[in-house]
Amino acid sequence: MNVTVSRKAHFNAAHRLFVKEWSDEKNLNVFGVCSNSNYHGHNYEIIVDVTGKVDPVTGMVIDLKTLKDIIKNEIEDLMDHKNLNLDIDYFKKVVPTAENICIFIWNKLRIKINYNKKLEVTLYETPRNFVKYNGN
Amino acid sequence: MNVTVSRKAHFNAAHRLFVKEWSDEKNLNVFGVCSNSNYHGHNYEIIVDVTGKVDPVTGMVIDLKTLKDIIKNEIEDLMDHKNLNLDIDYFKKVVPTAENICIFIWNKLRIKINYNKKLEVTLYETPRNFVKYNGN
Amino acid sequence: MNVTVSRKAHFNAAHRLFVKEWSDEKNLNVFGVCSNSNYHGHNYEIIVDVTGKVDPVTGMVIDLKTLKDIIKNEIEDLMDHKNLNLDIDYFKKVVPTAENICIFIWNKLRIKINYNKKLEVTLYETPRNFVKYNGN
Amino acid sequence: MNVTVSRKAHFNAAHRLFVKEWSDEKNLNVFGVCSNSNYHGHNYEIIVDVTGKVDPVTGMVIDLKTLKDIIKNEIEDLMDHKNLNLDIDYFKKVVPTAENICIFIWNKLRIKINYNKKLEVTLYETPRNFVKYNGN
Amino acid sequence: MNVTVSRKAHFNAAHRLFVKEWSDEKNLNVFGVCSNSNYHGHNYEIIVDVTGKVDPVTGMVIDLKTLKDIIKNEIEDLMDHKNLNLDIDYFKKVVPTAENICIFIWNKLRIKINYNKKLEVTLYETPRNFVKYNGN
Amino acid sequence: MNVTVSRKAHFNAAHRLFVKEWSDEKNLNVFGVCSNSNYHGHNYEIIVDVTGKVDPVTGMVIDLKTLKDIIKNEIEDLMDHKNLNLDIDYFKKVVPTAENICIFIWNKLRIKINYNKKLEVTLYETPRNFVKYNGN
Repeated sequence: MNVTVSRKAHFNAAHRLFVKEWSDEKNLNVFGVCSNSNYHGHNYEIIVDVTGKVDPVTGMVIDLKTLKDIIKNEIEDLMDHKNLNLDIDYFKKVVPTAENICIFIWNKLRIKINYNKKLEVTLYETPRNFVKYNGN
Repeated sequence: MNVTVSRKAHFNAAHRLFVKEWSDEKNLNVFGVCSNSNYHGHNYEIIVDVTGKVDPVTGMVIDLKTLKDIIKNEIEDLMDHKNLNLDIDYFKKVVPTAENICIFIWNKLRIKINYNKKLEVTLYETPRNFVKYNGN
Repeated sequence: MNVTVSRKAHFNAAHRLFVKEWSDEKNLNVFGVCSNSNYHGHNYEIIVDVTGKVDPVTGMVIDLKTLKDIIKNEIEDLMDHKNLNLDIDYFKKVVPTAENICIFIWNKLRIKINYNKKLEVTLYETPRNFVKYNGN
Repeated sequence: MNVTVSRKAHFNAAHRLFVKEWSDEKNLNVFGVCSNSNYHGHNYEIIVDVTGKVDPVTGMVIDLKTLKDIIKNEIEDLMDHKNLNLDIDYFKKVVPTAENICIFIWNKLRIKINYNKKLEVTLYETPRNFVKYNGN
Repeated sequence: MNVTVSRKAHFNAAHRLFVKEWSDEKNLNVFGVCSNSNYHGHNYEIIVDVTGKVDPVTGMVIDLKTLKDIIKNEIEDLMDHKNLNLDIDYFKKVVPTAENICIFIWNKLRIKINYNKKLEVTLYETPRNFVKYNGN
Repeated sequence: MNVTVSRKAHFNAAHRLFVKEWSDEKNLNVFGVCSNSNYHGHNYEIIVDVTGKVDPVTGMVIDLKTLKDIIKNEIEDLMDHKNLNLDIDYFKKVVPTAENICIFIWNKLRIKINYNKKLEVTLYETPRNFVKYNGN
């Protein structure tokens, strides 16, 4: 019996979308107002799904307090109240689109969660724009 | 690396559920108050999921502004502030249940989005009733 | 000690905005797509606020089950799955804007709730458009 | 053409997490504040997904009123305003974690819904903690 | 210039509604399923509104971190994952209706917030039932 | 008959809280992580309440399309996808706390809405932190 356990968390961050090798004009054409050189920001919401067997004694797939702490230590402490482009090395070379932020978070969490469990991450940039990644 | 990108949109419309070939009595039996001959209506919410590879330069699966525009041109401009039964030819022969509206929207969007990407549409008729279709 | 007790309810209805005495052109100018002659519709949400003294024994201002039943009998049974313009006499002469629907609901509820309690009604036409009326 | 039809419902219940065979100390270590011997409680939200073919005449996978009634009869009438540990026999032997409650609900609904349709249940314990089960 | 600053928090608790001096039958008549002797529970949400002058230098009415800490220390630590009837002395004599819980919270917070500021507390028992108290 | 008409809108922006005249240490003490010199950001939500008489013919207090356009022209076009500290002159001297942003928005809107109507603005910095201002 496989159950998916989900935990919702959030962090507030600034970012801008631009490719260093491109001119300002091309960045504006491709990324529009998201390329504003002074940055803008979001209340990012994340949902972390962990799928695995239910322990027959504890009735749990993963302790939700443990999952909450992993998200806090790996993601919130790193990304909350930060400028993704300036404060996180990874995004000095990689454009911090929702897609790339989601992959980054998945990779950070994957090594902290037992590999006999599946992992999926959903990232809301706004209530209307969101992305999902599961490693495939 | 496949990521699912989602965009939420909405339209407000009137509809009624009834099968022309049936008596009023049978329509009432099957569709209940939803068959009211004077129509009723909903704030429909739609979520469009597009799944594909992340472009290694732009970090995007599909430009969310492009996706927003496709939904506006194909769905909102056609269905917002309309009577689905009277204003949209397709629903003169097909009952506008949430299921059928969702399939209709999926078909409209499918031809506008590159076939190397998967497409799924979720349609909320109310916050408590919703349906999902992915072409299978 | 005055406490405000609130109950949320909802109904789904069709409507259109137009003034009979005006030309179609003027109606379109003033009400835009909301004047579509075939109607459109909404999931209306209502919040009913009742303010009064807390009963020292029961700890209640008004029994929430009683309030729920009043809203069901007076509002939902009358307005749910209806066409406001065609199915409710009051809106044959009065334009069913959110403002006027809210006043109508307030008047229906006012006579059912003890006059030693204050009454306020909030009506959501969409999650982004809503109105509030308290009799003043 | 397979469509997933979803219905959201809810029930309010008390519970506590503990394993009878364990000491209070061990229960506190594993379940933390959730093991409070006087119980605590939640507004549980459930989403029931039913996937199947759309009937070509009615345009429905399953009548949403029927689905609503099944959920009411099987789940809400049994679990709403109850103490899961004390009022439901099943949880006298099984810890009422979100995972186990979700499996219990899925099993109750599975026998009431035609086996040519797939069934999935999502259970929200809080807006931030939720689980999903589909029988696999 | 007076601004209202609001902070949302939550706690999960069990309770039951009953008056000790009444028979079980009368309790059932007045409080319905809420009088279940084994308790039920809720995810309570609270919104604390503090109204006052904006400090011309810091631009703040009250530091939101301070407000968050007051709510945590005074309310969440006391009420989260508790049985209101059994674990909180106040509710051994007072019925823990939403109204009375809201007044209790307001009184706990009032003495911790400068009296030159107004205080209002909203308590959601469920997303559809909520109450508000401001000391008047 | 006075009715309050409300319109919800949003903008995404970066900001930081700091007082120029203070040392970095004092800014960190007062504003915590919000003083990060590289900025962070939010999805700000605003609710604009306009209270006035209902026009007896149109049934409207203010045309919601007009109100939507005013908010777009005065607020969204100015603040969306911007850095409040760098891109908006006003916040070069005034700390962009939620309180001060709300007052700024109220002042911008006040001159565009007929003075026979009352105006109130609510600003959500996050779903848990929000402020309200009405000019008093």
